Amino acid sequence: MTDAPEHSPDSPSPSHLRARCMDLDTRDRPIAILRKDSPLCRSEGFTAHARIRLESAHDDVIVELFQTGSELLAADEIGLSTAAWGKLQVRDGDHVHARHPRPLKSVRYVRGKVYGQPFPADGLKEIMRDIVKGRYDEIELAMFLTAIAARALDDAELVALTGAMVEVGERLAWDRPVLMDKHCVGGLPGNRTTPLVVAIVAANGLVIPKTSSRAITSPAGTADTMEMLAPVNLDLGSMRRVVEAEGGCVVWGGSVRLSPVDDILIRVARVMDLDAEAQLVASVLSKKVAAGATHLVLDIPVGDTAKVRSRSEAEILGQRLEATAGAFGLETRTIVTDGRQPVGRGIGPALEAHDVLAVLQNDGHQPRDLRERAVSLAGELLEMGGAASPGRGRALAMETLESGAAWRKFKAICEAQGGLRTPPGAACREVIPAPMTGCVTHFDNRRLGRVAKLAGAPAAPAAGVELHVHLDDRIARGEPLYTIHAETRGELEYAHEFAGSNGDIIRLDPES
Amino acid sequence: MTDAPEHSPDSPSPSHLRARCMDLDTRDRPIAILRKDSPLCRSEGFTAHARIRLESAHDDVIVELFQTGSELLAADEIGLSTAAWGKLQVRDGDHVHARHPRPLKSVRYVRGKVYGQPFPADGLKEIMRDIVKGRYDEIELAMFLTAIAARALDDAELVALTGAMVEVGERLAWDRPVLMDKHCVGGLPGNRTTPLVVAIVAANGLVIPKTSSRAITSPAGTADTMEMLAPVNLDLGSMRRVVEAEGGCVVWGGSVRLSPVDDILIRVARVMDLDAEAQLVASVLSKKVAAGATHLVLDIPVGDTAKVRSRSEAEILGQRLEATAGAFGLETRTIVTDGRQPVGRGIGPALEAHDVLAVLQNDGHQPRDLRERAVSLAGELLEMGGAASPGRGRALAMETLESGAAWRKFKAICEAQGGLRTPPGAACREVIPAPMTGCVTHFDNRRLGRVAKLAGAPAAPAAGVELHVHLDDRIARGEPLYTIHAETRGELEYAHEFAGSNGDIIRLDPES
Repeated sequence: MTDAPEHSPDSPSPSHLRARCMDLDTRDRPIAILRKDSPLCRSEGFTAHARIRLESAHDDVIVELFQTGSELLAADEIGLSTAAWGKLQVRDGDHVHARHPRPLKSVRYVRGKVYGQPFPADGLKEIMRDIVKGRYDEIELAMFLTAIAARALDDAELVALTGAMVEVGERLAWDRPVLMDKHCVGGLPGNRTTPLVVAIVAANGLVIPKTSSRAITSPAGTADTMEMLAPVNLDLGSMRRVVEAEGGCVVWGGSVRLSPVDDILIRVARVMDLDAEAQLVASVLSKKVAAGATHLVLDIPVGDTAKVRSRSEAEILGQRLEATAGAFGLETRTIVTDGRQPVGRGIGPALEAHDVLAVLQNDGHQPRDLRERAVSLAGELLEMGGAASPGRGRALAMETLESGAAWRKFKAICEAQGGLRTPPGAACREVIPAPMTGCVTHFDNRRLGRVAKLAGAPAAPAAGVELHVHLDDRIARGEPLYTIHAETRGELEYAHEFAGSNGDIIRLDPES
Repeated sequence: MTDAPEHSPDSPSPSHLRARCMDLDTRDRPIAILRKDSPLCRSEGFTAHARIRLESAHDDVIVELFQTGSELLAADEIGLSTAAWGKLQVRDGDHVHARHPRPLKSVRYVRGKVYGQPFPADGLKEIMRDIVKGRYDEIELAMFLTAIAARALDDAELVALTGAMVEVGERLAWDRPVLMDKHCVGGLPGNRTTPLVVAIVAANGLVIPKTSSRAITSPAGTADTMEMLAPVNLDLGSMRRVVEAEGGCVVWGGSVRLSPVDDILIRVARVMDLDAEAQLVASVLSKKVAAGATHLVLDIPVGDTAKVRSRSEAEILGQRLEATAGAFGLETRTIVTDGRQPVGRGIGPALEAHDVLAVLQNDGHQPRDLRERAVSLAGELLEMGGAASPGRGRALAMETLESGAAWRKFKAICEAQGGLRTPPGAACREVIPAPMTGCVTHFDNRRLGRVAKLAGAPAAPAAGVELHVHLDDRIARGEPLYTIHAETRGELEYAHEFAGSNGDIIRLDPES
C-alpha cells in the first residue's frame, strides 16, 4: 500500500462499530443502518442499498445497508434489524466489524446454469453452503430457482443437489433398521392424509418420524394444519423423545433444521409462485434422507389443475423421485392418485384440521374421500414395513381407524408434542351460492386455493374455504356451493371480490 | 359481508395513515414501517416483510413493510423511506391509504416463459407497464431477467419487448429527417469511442443526440465516463437545447426517461452479473428508437473474455439487432471489432475520460488504438449520413480530429451540457509489477474489469486500472504492468488482494 494509514495502529479501526438494536422487524431479512456521514461510509465507499459483511465475536452475516442522515444514530453506531441482531448474537454496544463482502464464487455456477451449462461436481455443494450461511440475497436466490426451473437438472445433478441440501443441515440417526415415511407432491387442496397415516402406522408398531413443510404456494402445508392440533416447532431432542415414546410424530421440518436451505428457498419460491421439478425432488428427498427414512410412500395426485397435470407427467416425476431416492438407499413406492378435486371439505390450516379430527373420531359426517386416501397410503406402508402381509395392508389400516386405535395413538402423539389443541374458527364468513341448478363437473383447484390464500391462509390459520359439494353432486340455484372463512374483514372482502369475478371455479352443468 | 363493520362510516378508516418521512435512504427501494400493534396490521393481517400497496392523493407505490414495536411511530403513522416518500409526493401528516396489493397478472407470463411458453402478444406490454410502475419486486425482476436469459426470445417476442420498452417511456420527436446514433455492445474495458464519435460526426454537420447508459457489469459505462467531463443528467428539454445548438450530445439515457424500464432492469442485472441477449437487444434498440434515431452503427468487439466470444456469435447477434431495428425503421450497420484486449490505457470513469481528452487534444502520448476505433465508427456514420462519399468517411473523420475541429465541437457540447469538467485523480495507487520478463500474449478482460470494480469503479469515479502494456509488448521483470487507482484504502486493499491472487490476468510468455 502506498498511501499512509489514516489512524494509528492503537486507535480503534473505523470499521469497528458499536451495535445498536433498532427494534426493526424485517422477518428473516438482515438489514443494517449507518449514518450517511459516518467515517466508515466515507472510507469504505459504502452507499445505500449496498451489501456489506458484518462480523461479531460470534458470527458473520451479509446485510443490506440503508443510510440515515438524522440523529437516530451516533456516527460510530450501526443499527441492526432484529434478524441481523439475532444472527450476530450481540448486545447493545458490542463491537461489530464491517467490510466489503467477497464476491461469491458459487454464483458463477448459477450463471452457467442459466446459459445451459451443467453444475460441476462440487458446484451445488458450494451454492448450498453459501445459501445456508445467508450469503445469497433475494435476487440471487430468485436467479437460482428460476435457473433450475428453466433448465432441468440431469440425474447426477439431482442427486448432487439432494446430497448437498442434506449435508448443510442436521441428520437424524436412529437405532432402528426400518423407518417409514410418506409424502404427497402437493397441489391438491385439503389432501391432509399425513396425520392419519402417521397415527395408523405408529399404532401398528412401525416407526414413522414425520417432518413436514409449511405451505409453498398452497393455502396450507401439513405443518400448518398439524399446528392447529399440536405444537410442531420441535427441536431435534424433543422430536426424538416423541418418536421414542410413541413411534411417530408430525413436526415442522424447518424447526429441526433438516435441510434448512429448503426453507430459505421455499420463502422465495412462494413469492415467485414457482415450483421447479428439481427443487421439488431435492426438497422432498433431502428431508427424508436427513430424517433417516428407509422406506417411503409417495402420493402424486393428478388433475388438470393439480400440481401434476397428467398421468405420464406423474410417472416421469415418480421415476425421478424413485431413482434419486435409490442413490441414498431409500426404498420408494409412488402412488398416482386422482387429483381432479379437493380432498375433504376444508381448505386452510384449521378447516383441514377439523376434517382430520372427524376421520380419526369416526364421525358420521367424516369426509370419506380423505379416509379412503389415508387408508391406501397407510396400507402400503404397513406392507412395506412388514406389519401386514402383502394385500392385507389396506384392511389393517381401516381396522386401526375403526377400532379407535388410530385416534388414541394420535392423541398420545399430540400430547407428547406438547398438548392436543382445538383448531380455531373464523370470525368472518361469507357463503358463495350456486349461480344455477346443475351437476358439479369441474373444480379449478388453483383458483380455489387462491380464494383461500386471499382470505388469509395460511398466515391467518382459521381462514380458508369450506366446500359443500364434490364432483357429480347435484345442487340447486342459490344453495351453498362453498363458504369463505377469514379472520379479518379486509381479507374476507378481498377473497370475496376474487370469488365474485371467478364464478366458474366450480363448474356446474345444468344438462347432466 | 356477514360481519358487522368495526367503525361507523363517518370515522376515518383504519387504513388511512399519517405519512412520516423516516430519513431512511434505501436508494430506489420503497420501504414503509408500521407499528406492530397498529390497528391496521391487525385488521388487514399485514406482517413484517409483506408487500403492501400505498396510495396518496398523487400516486401509488408497492412497498416492502417492516415493523417496529418501539415508540418510533404513533399507532396511526406510517414511516416512509425517501424512495417511497418521493414516489407518493406527500408531506408530513398527509393521509396515505394502505391495502393488500392485487396479484400481478403479468407475472404469470414470466412464469410461463420459465417453462418455455412464448410470451403472448400483449404479455410483454403488461409486464413492462407493471415494472415501470414499480410493481415488480426484486425477486420478480430477477425471475424475469433469468427467464429471458435461459429461454431465448424469438424474433416477434424481441420486437414486442423492444416496442413495449419504448412505449412505457418518453419518446423524442425531431424535425430532422436524418438522426445518427452509435452503440457498442459492451464487454471491452476502456472502449470509450462515443464522446469522440459524437464530436467528429457533429463537427461535420450531422445530428447525433446520443443517450448512453451507466455500467451494468463493467467498471464504467459511457455515461459514467462522460460525467467526468460534463453533466449528463439532463432532462428532455435540456438535451434538446444542447442538440439544437451543437448538433450532438452525450447524456445519460435514464435521466431523460427514454426506456425507463431498462434502468430498473439494469440495476438487478448488475447484482446478477447476467447479460441476457434479449435484454441486450431490447435495451440498446429501445433507447435508439425512443431517441428518434434513423441511422445506427453498432460496434461488437469479439474476444475470448469480451462479452461476445466468437465471430459467429457476433454475427448472429448483429443479425438479431439489425432485424429488430428494421422492424422500427432504423437502418443499422454492425461492425465486428477486435476485443482481445482493453482499448486505451484507462479502465474506470475518470481514467477513461483522460484517454478521451488525450485523443481530442492530439496529445503525443494519446492511445492510438482508441483513436483508430473512433475514426472507423465515425467514418461509417459520416458515409451513412451523406457527409462523406462512400470510402471517404474514415479520412474525413481523421482530418476532423487532427484539425482540432472535433475538440472544439466537444468543448462546445460540454459547455452546452452544463460546463466542461476536469476528471479527478485517485488518492490511493498501487503498481502491479511484471512477475517475469516476457512478451504480453493474453488479457483476461473480465478479471481486469473485476480489479477495477473491486477498486471502487464506477461508484468511486477516480478508481480503476491504468494499463502500461498492450498485446505483443515486451516487458522486463519488475517493470510496471498496471496501476490500481482507488479513492479509499479499503477498496485499494481489496482490489490489490484480488490482483495478487490472480497473477495471470495479463499473461506473459518468456519464450516469444
